[in-house]
Amino acid sequence: MMSTRLTGAFAPAVTPFKADLSPDFDLYVAHCRWLQQQGAGLAVFGTNSEANSLTVQERMMLLDGLIERGLDAARILPGTGCCALPDTVALSRHATLHGCAGVLMLPPFFYKGVSDDGLFEYYSQVIERVGLQGLRVFLYHIPAFSGVPISLNLIERLATRYPQQVRGVKDSSGDWANMEAMLRNFPQLDIFPASESLLSRAMPLGAAGCISATININPGAISALCANWAEQGAQQAQAKVDVIRQIIQKYPMIAALKWTIGHFRDQNNWQVQRPPLQPLSASQHADLLAELQAAGFSMPGLEAA
Amino acid sequence: MMSTRLTGAFAPAVTPFKADLSPDFDLYVAHCRWLQQQGAGLAVFGTNSEANSLTVQERMMLLDGLIERGLDAARILPGTGCCALPDTVALSRHATLHGCAGVLMLPPFFYKGVSDDGLFEYYSQVIERVGLQGLRVFLYHIPAFSGVPISLNLIERLATRYPQQVRGVKDSSGDWANMEAMLRNFPQLDIFPASESLLSRAMPLGAAGCISATININPGAISALCANWAEQGAQQAQAKVDVIRQIIQKYPMIAALKWTIGHFRDQNNWQVQRPPLQPLSASQHADLLAELQAAGFSMPGLEAA
Repeated sequence: MMSTRLTGAFAPAVTPFKADLSPDFDLYVAHCRWLQQQGAGLAVFGTNSEANSLTVQERMMLLDGLIERGLDAARILPGTGCCALPDTVALSRHATLHGCAGVLMLPPFFYKGVSDDGLFEYYSQVIERVGLQGLRVFLYHIPAFSGVPISLNLIERLATRYPQQVRGVKDSSGDWANMEAMLRNFPQLDIFPASESLLSRAMPLGAAGCISATININPGAISALCANWAEQGAQQAQAKVDVIRQIIQKYPMIAALKWTIGHFRDQNNWQVQRPPLQPLSASQHADLLAELQAAGFSMPGLEAA
Repeated sequence: MMSTRLTGAFAPAVTPFKADLSPDFDLYVAHCRWLQQQGAGLAVFGTNSEANSLTVQERMMLLDGLIERGLDAARILPGTGCCALPDTVALSRHATLHGCAGVLMLPPFFYKGVSDDGLFEYYSQVIERVGLQGLRVFLYHIPAFSGVPISLNLIERLATRYPQQVRGVKDSSGDWANMEAMLRNFPQLDIFPASESLLSRAMPLGAAGCISATININPGAISALCANWAEQGAQQAQAKVDVIRQIIQKYPMIAALKWTIGHFRDQNNWQVQRPPLQPLSASQHADLLAELQAAGFSMPGLEAA
């Protein structure tokens, strides 16, 4: 059996809101379409999408809308992991029935100190209850937010028990030793680091690409680097994307991405975040813009999207 | 204006599940009725209720059912705090329309390191959007699970801005200095420690009672201690409830409570937990039972419930 591997740059697409805090669907579709046109996949409903600030119903409606407006489901990897098993099952079924590339699944993240046995049982229940051939699970290791690590042992057990369904991991630990161990231990899985700054180290070891916040504003360059990391000029391309990331990382990430998109699109609504997250201050706007301009940053192709 | 103060022992009622992991409603009602008959209030949908393992719809149906079966809404304090603002609003409205005593509200708990400004905005939005006179908010400080502390500064700001709606706090920090500061700084609020073992220290400083896991199995004695803490014999009563708590605390809390209830009710279904949580092992059963028997533990009044 040939299995399809998932590769490339996937953007945890940020979610725009209207002033009343409801999702701004028109801005959302335009942003997601631009990302796909620039060569990026869509890891919608990720940490940087404020996914956990959305209800289950809102996530389903947004995904329905993207598909209905013609975005390519085979390049969409929605986040579906919730605290409650039935919510995770419902979102994962929904995404799978839409023909999505896979689902990126947080562990249940309220209880801390849970055992690998308990997490194995949780993921097993999700897979069994979704019960669809097309389900492709990507495990999401982001201990700084979830407080619930996905251990190498857990990956091993799940990938052995469910080789058809468990297809990859996103590693947001920021721990290179962990990333390297995942790449060496699980060549059969598609492993995505959470930052394009790791591409030059991770791609030669077999990484699948990256799922990174900054793809929201730099999709073309990061997608190209995922494809061309072994070509001449890759080192300079790596340095160029690193500069943009280093600027954005000085600010609260989601707020900085939203402000940048709003500025380059000339659309004010991009400032809104659902509480408890907050937008940048006016002085942060000025600093961020000055830094991006000094780096020669632009967002090409917005007109066509 | 006279304001109603909330006092007493509230049990974060554990939630029984059938083998298929759906809530076992008959067991649930029987347990909750027994708790009220023994003098305890019901802090349903708390941490020890596996609340975050339930969907919004499941929580609404369980609360609807308790009210329909005649339990006293004025002694029910449901947990309603979710990561997504619209979910928190929906659950808080639902509980308020049922005439519940109040709602116990976790902060949004996925994003870490959020500002007091962001949390103030979150709670303000909930209060404004619920928009009901009867809303009574109890803030839930449980940093070990939520990762998002409720600071004294945040309580001060919310209680000042919304004196009608913000009525109390549950402090699950386990930090006595914090508990004491809350009691001294906010005499207008009903402050509940998360353990009956603090009653003898907290009640003289004005605590409202306690919201504690072990009330699930020891409701009569803990309710009596909340009422009679200043009477003769309170010291012995404190020591007696402490013994039971110390036994339970040696085990995973929810699993130990469920096992104990199932044993004394002779109902096997109480063993089931939603993953990622797991039941006790057989050897833990034996150890726990031996310890409880040695302490002369019983659950009086089960026949009548």
